[in-house]
Amino acid sequence: MTEKVDNELNAIEATAISYLTAFNRADVAGVLSTYADDGVLMGPGRPASIGKDALAAAYPAVFEAIEFAMAYDIKEVAQISPDWGFVRSATVGKETNRATGITAESAYQELFLMRRTAGMWRIARYCTTKISPAA
Amino acid sequence: MTEKVDNELNAIEATAISYLTAFNRADVAGVLSTYADDGVLMGPGRPASIGKDALAAAYPAVFEAIEFAMAYDIKEVAQISPDWGFVRSATVGKETNRATGITAESAYQELFLMRRTAGMWRIARYCTTKISPAA
Repeated sequence: MTEKVDNELNAIEATAISYLTAFNRADVAGVLSTYADDGVLMGPGRPASIGKDALAAAYPAVFEAIEFAMAYDIKEVAQISPDWGFVRSATVGKETNRATGITAESAYQELFLMRRTAGMWRIARYCTTKISPAA
Repeated sequence: MTEKVDNELNAIEATAISYLTAFNRADVAGVLSTYADDGVLMGPGRPASIGKDALAAAYPAVFEAIEFAMAYDIKEVAQISPDWGFVRSATVGKETNRATGITAESAYQELFLMRRTAGMWRIARYCTTKISPAA
């Protein structure tokens, strides 16, 4: 049982890391693969993106606007039921506005709500908030 | 069973509404009462606040800096296990910087992860992101 729980925690964390690393390399397909079909993104500066079609439109727009060079820190991983878990993380780094070429330091906090479907942990709901520079 | 589930959904939603309305009237005690003892706030412009003591320091600082006049819209309420649920919401309104007196329109998205403890639904993890004006 403990080993099984540990395996699930590892799988939950792995999905968050897959997301964060795909995001950092502007890999739209990689990002989308970590979401559930009905996954929801809530992030700074844009309305919520609800479902794979909306997500598939949102991420290219993000990556076309900004180049990210972020390092992640997984703060917490929890399984809260057989098919649900969450991850809390922080990311710190630099982002470059592709239009202006201006690079600035930035920091975010993330909350991933994960659901297991067909044995795979996927992002069901995701909120990321920009903590620096202040909005 | 259906009625019980509905009751829990109502209770989960009620905790989110208690939070959002207490926040809007800058009611620190009201806000804190909706959090679990180990609750975590992730919001724009500040590090994560982890636990009641940190939350009790964070909210007065928020309310001293900004006066909020926001309307909330509950987008989604779900129970994902006997003791866990989540709420997704959006808030739109105006905020006034108390130092400058400048009022601006603003919009946020919220993700509440709720846990039931001793029969009460409380905020376990909470992320709010500012969608307008863009960070």
